[in-house]
Amino acid sequence: MTVYLVGAGPGDADLLTLRGASLLARADVVVYDRLIDTSVLELAGPGAELIDVGKRAGHSSSQGLINDLLVTLGQSHECVVRLKGGDSFLFGRGGEEFEALESAGLRCEVVPGVTSAFAAPAVAGIPVTHRGLSHGVTVVTGHTRDGDFVDFRGLANPDLTLVVLMGAARRGAIAGELIEGGLDVATPVAVVEKAYMPGQRVVRCVLGELAAVEVAAPAVLVIGAVAELSYSHLQSVVAASARSAP
Amino acid sequence: MTVYLVGAGPGDADLLTLRGASLLARADVVVYDRLIDTSVLELAGPGAELIDVGKRAGHSSSQGLINDLLVTLGQSHECVVRLKGGDSFLFGRGGEEFEALESAGLRCEVVPGVTSAFAAPAVAGIPVTHRGLSHGVTVVTGHTRDGDFVDFRGLANPDLTLVVLMGAARRGAIAGELIEGGLDVATPVAVVEKAYMPGQRVVRCVLGELAAVEVAAPAVLVIGAVAELSYSHLQSVVAASARSAP
Repeated sequence: MTVYLVGAGPGDADLLTLRGASLLARADVVVYDRLIDTSVLELAGPGAELIDVGKRAGHSSSQGLINDLLVTLGQSHECVVRLKGGDSFLFGRGGEEFEALESAGLRCEVVPGVTSAFAAPAVAGIPVTHRGLSHGVTVVTGHTRDGDFVDFRGLANPDLTLVVLMGAARRGAIAGELIEGGLDVATPVAVVEKAYMPGQRVVRCVLGELAAVEVAAPAVLVIGAVAELSYSHLQSVVAASARSAP
Repeated sequence: MTVYLVGAGPGDADLLTLRGASLLARADVVVYDRLIDTSVLELAGPGAELIDVGKRAGHSSSQGLINDLLVTLGQSHECVVRLKGGDSFLFGRGGEEFEALESAGLRCEVVPGVTSAFAAPAVAGIPVTHRGLSHGVTVVTGHTRDGDFVDFRGLANPDLTLVVLMGAARRGAIAGELIEGGLDVATPVAVVEKAYMPGQRVVRCVLGELAAVEVAAPAVLVIGAVAELSYSHLQSVVAASARSAP
């Protein structure tokens, strides 16, 4: 009896790992939420029970209820797959689910997945690191489920790329804090909406314009010199003042 | 005629994506280097030509030669797969290969992969973000192929997890700079050696001890409060003064 915390990747089932796909095919139960694309769920075997924890009792389940559910399922089924959007252990509180399962004496295996933090920029032709432009990357969320916010002033580092997940709604405040922290208003920004999903779109602007740009969630914000890189065959919408790639 | 830049994941072929595996199976040519595990290469079709660019002409190829090779291959083959260790666009100069191919007018598709930056901590039971411990993560390398170094003093942020790839050799200098930048000497550190490969090992210590701890490359350094998390069934070697998980 094992519970597998499987990173489902950024959307498209093609970006699931071989291990993730093989576990889905033999799972007795699959637990998922609204971050999971239906193309991924289609890889589950015909006998698998599918449980949407985003819709139980008519509203989003609290993390405590999800942890309890995973423990109960782990005690009664041979193979339980908990699908997590993107990577299993980057945000999404996978660590808390792992802790709850371990505390209950259950076997738990973490299967990492492709993170949207790097895959969403890639779909826009943006490498998060690039010689001469960025020698590292910081990944944060625009807000947490607990409702507290990251202080972006401390993240204003022109040598690193900054990737913000779930940052669409607070993009104005985020840009303001980064500028206050010392980042140039002309810092390139790419907003990748609905990466690897129907309706995917890339909007390019500079940091000073971010508040005014229209953005539809889910979106990944890529902030830094690399956000200016773009390639001929890639679809993108370029804001008025955004410069083209060198 | 397309060149695919495929992220091969951290080692074990099971962590390749479905898209990566399907491209490997139909590739005419597969270009790889020493970062790629043989289990991944075994997924290539029987007719595929395998080219190890780490061993051409008896020494490591320069990036320029690799770019030229990819262009030449892309001009003469239907399906060329360039395997990159981990993710295709995080370090490893995938962006430069993409640029060279685009400049030559070739079609190039980026297939993201599972990054060692998050998968190596996961194998040690460490989520790179965790409620109350870390609300984000920064990823850098210990050195670059150009030989220049990141200034770690500017990365001393107790609220974020710091992941250092290829940092084993310079771990003493890295720890010194982080402490100089303000990080506590008691900051937990986990060193994950050979993640997802035979001989995998986790060493735990605190930042002040990192210089003195024996580390074998390849290793991923995880620095920050989350590095203290560990779970019962996971193999790990704990340094003398490292504390156990809460």
